[in-house]
Amino acid sequence: MDLMENSLKMHEEKVGKIEVASKVSIENRGDLSLAYTPGVAEPCKRIHEKREAVYKYTAKGNMVAVVTDGTAVLGLGDIGPEAAMPVMEGKAILFKEFANVDAFPICLATKDVDEIVKTVKLIAPTFGGINLEDIGAPRCFEIEEKLKKELDIPVFHDDQHGTAVVVVAGIINALKVVKKKIEEATIVINGAGAAGVAITKMLLEMNPKDILLCDRKGVVFAGSPNNNGSKEEIAQLTNKSNRQGTLKDAMKGADIFIGVSAANVVTEEMVKSMKKDAIVFAMANPVPEIMPDLAIEAGAKVVGSGRSDFPNQINNLLAFPGIFRGALDVRAGEINEAMKQAAAYAIASIIREDELKPEYVIPDVFNKRVVEKVAVAVAIAAKETGVARID
Amino acid sequence: MDLMENSLKMHEEKVGKIEVASKVSIENRGDLSLAYTPGVAEPCKRIHEKREAVYKYTAKGNMVAVVTDGTAVLGLGDIGPEAAMPVMEGKAILFKEFANVDAFPICLATKDVDEIVKTVKLIAPTFGGINLEDIGAPRCFEIEEKLKKELDIPVFHDDQHGTAVVVVAGIINALKVVKKKIEEATIVINGAGAAGVAITKMLLEMNPKDILLCDRKGVVFAGSPNNNGSKEEIAQLTNKSNRQGTLKDAMKGADIFIGVSAANVVTEEMVKSMKKDAIVFAMANPVPEIMPDLAIEAGAKVVGSGRSDFPNQINNLLAFPGIFRGALDVRAGEINEAMKQAAAYAIASIIREDELKPEYVIPDVFNKRVVEKVAVAVAIAAKETGVARID
Repeated sequence: MDLMENSLKMHEEKVGKIEVASKVSIENRGDLSLAYTPGVAEPCKRIHEKREAVYKYTAKGNMVAVVTDGTAVLGLGDIGPEAAMPVMEGKAILFKEFANVDAFPICLATKDVDEIVKTVKLIAPTFGGINLEDIGAPRCFEIEEKLKKELDIPVFHDDQHGTAVVVVAGIINALKVVKKKIEEATIVINGAGAAGVAITKMLLEMNPKDILLCDRKGVVFAGSPNNNGSKEEIAQLTNKSNRQGTLKDAMKGADIFIGVSAANVVTEEMVKSMKKDAIVFAMANPVPEIMPDLAIEAGAKVVGSGRSDFPNQINNLLAFPGIFRGALDVRAGEINEAMKQAAAYAIASIIREDELKPEYVIPDVFNKRVVEKVAVAVAIAAKETGVARID
Repeated sequence: MDLMENSLKMHEEKVGKIEVASKVSIENRGDLSLAYTPGVAEPCKRIHEKREAVYKYTAKGNMVAVVTDGTAVLGLGDIGPEAAMPVMEGKAILFKEFANVDAFPICLATKDVDEIVKTVKLIAPTFGGINLEDIGAPRCFEIEEKLKKELDIPVFHDDQHGTAVVVVAGIINALKVVKKKIEEATIVINGAGAAGVAITKMLLEMNPKDILLCDRKGVVFAGSPNNNGSKEEIAQLTNKSNRQGTLKDAMKGADIFIGVSAANVVTEEMVKSMKKDAIVFAMANPVPEIMPDLAIEAGAKVVGSGRSDFPNQINNLLAFPGIFRGALDVRAGEINEAMKQAAAYAIASIIREDELKPEYVIPDVFNKRVVEKVAVAVAIAAKETGVARID
C-alpha cells in the first residue's frame, strides 16, 4: 500500500516528527549568562517566591503532555508505549501546527491505574495541561477522574471528550438540516468504550428524548448482569423504558445513529428501519459501521464518518487544538462541561445556516477559523464558569 | 543588577526558552494521512513487531530527559520543581544548540528516591537517555545507581560526572604545564557532595599518589563517626595514611586543590602552604573558594574556576553535549567509566601541547571542535567496551 510505505519512509527520514527547539540563540558568553548561569538564577528565585510565576518565565503555560499507556492505539489496540510513540508525536505536531500549543509525548511503561495517576501527578510541574490519549476503557475513566481531582491544570481525555465535542457539533447542525429537535429525537449509540460513553454523557446534557447505548451484547440497561460500575451508571441515565435487545432492535424507529464501534456492524436494512430523515454518523476507523454511500441509499439524510474521502468527516482535530488553546490562554484549572459545549457550538457555528446541507454539517479540518473560534468560546466559558485564573 | 533584570526580561518576553517543534508540515489531507491517521499506523505496527524500531521511526533516539527534583538548583538549594524549570530549560537548549540533542525538562514533584526512580522508569519509553540534574546528595547517588540497573538507556548525573570529566581534562593539561605526574601528586578535594565524590572517583582511576577528600568537618577518613554509607565507601579508597584534621591541615604540601564547596573557604596562606607549582581549581559559584588572582599571588601556578571572567573556566558545557551526542549516536546502553575518561582526554586534547600555558589548560566553551571531538571519543569508547548497540 503506497500510503503506508510513504508514511514509513517519511518517519524514517525524519527520525520522528518532533524536536525540542530553542527560542533563544546561544552564540556568546552574554547569551549564556542570560539564558543560563548566572542570569537564570533570577527567574528561579521569582518562581521560588511565588509559584505562579512559573507561567511567566517558563514554557509550562503552553506545554501539554500527551500521555498514553499504549493500550488502545488507533484500531491497533494494546501495542505498548513504544509503538504508541508515532501517534503521540503526531498528536503533538497537530497541537503545534493547528494551535501553537507545545505538546510532548509521555508514553508510560505501565497499565496500572494508580501508577499512571501517580506518574502524571509527579511530572505535572513541567506542564500546563494533560491530554490523555489512547488509554483503554474503563481504566481511562478512572485515570481521568483521579487526575482531575489531584491536579490544578486541565486534564482532558481526547478520545472521550474531543470525539464527543465534534459529534455534538455535527448533531447540532444535522438536526437543523433535517428540521428535528433533539428533545424529540431518539439516539442510538453503538460502542460503550471511551468515546461512546463521553458522547452519551455530552448528549444527555442536551436533553434528548432518549439515548440507547449499545455494546457487543446489545442495548445497555439498568440492572444488567453485564454492567460494570461505569456501565451501570450510564445505564441509569439512558434507556428510559429499560429496553433490552440487539443493536438491530434498538435502531428501529431511531432518529440518530452514532457508531464508535467496528466495521460493517450496521446493514442497509437496519438504516431503513430508522425514522425518516435519519442521521447516521458511522465513525469506526478505517472501515465504518456502514459505508456512507450505502447509508444514503438506505435512506439516511445526513451521513458522517471518520473518513476524509466522504462528506462530513468527524475528526477530533476540529476540537482539541482550540479547546487547549482556549483553556491555556486563560489558565483554566480544568476543562468542564460548559467549555466542551461551547466548543461544540463554536464548531457548528462555523457553517452558516444558508451553507448547511446534508453533505456539509461539519467544517473542514483545514478551515483556519475553527481553532480561533473554538479557543475564544472555550476561554469565555472558562471565565463564565469561574475556572479561568487570568483574563 | 543589570544582568539579572535582563535575564528576567528575556525569560518573560519569550515565556520560557523551549518549544516543541514539528519536523513535518501539515498543510493538507495528504500530509495529515502520512503523519497521522491512517499512515501512522504503519510505523506503530513495525515498532509493535520489533521494539528496537522505535529508534528508527520516532524521536526517542535523540531525546534526553533532563530530570530534577529541584533540591539542589545552582547555588539556590532546595527551591522546588517549578522554580527549577528555568535551569532545566536552559540545559535543554544547551543540549540542542551545542550538540543537536533534543532535551526536555522533567521537573518532579517528589523528593522520594523510590518515587523518582519509579517515575523516570515509567516515562523512559519516550527517551533515549536520562540526564539527572540538580538533585541533592546523597540521594542523587542512590537514584543514579538504581536507574542504571533498571534502564537500558544511558543515565548520567551531570552535576557529578559532567563536572568530573571537565575537572579531569583540566588536571591532565595542568599537570603537563607544571611538569608533574599524577602518580606523584597529592590532591585535596573540598566538598563531598555529588561533584566532589564523582571527581574523587574519576581521579582515583588515574592512580594519584593520594586524594584527601574534605567536607565541612575536615578530612574524610575511614571509620569516622560522621560517615554515611557512601562517605565511608569513598574514605576506604582515599586518604591512604588515614590523616585527620582540617582543610587547612590537608592542604599543607598538597600538589592540587579542587574546590566544589563554598565561597572564600581557602586563604592565601593555605595556598602558600601547598607544594611549589600548585594547581588550584576553585569552582564554588558564583564566588570561588579563593579568587583566582589571589591564588596566583599566593604562588599557585595554574588556577581555574567556574567563572567566565577568569582564565580556565571549568564548565560542564564542555562535557555533557558531546558525551550524550556520542552515546546516542551509537545507542549506548550506558555511559561508563571508559567513556567518561575518553571525554576528559578529548577535551584536554583540544589544546595543542605548544599552546598549553598556565592560563590556558581548558578550552573555551564556544570552541566548536569540542563537541565533535568528545562525541567521537565517547562513541569509540562505547564500542570498545561493548555497550554500543549500533555502529
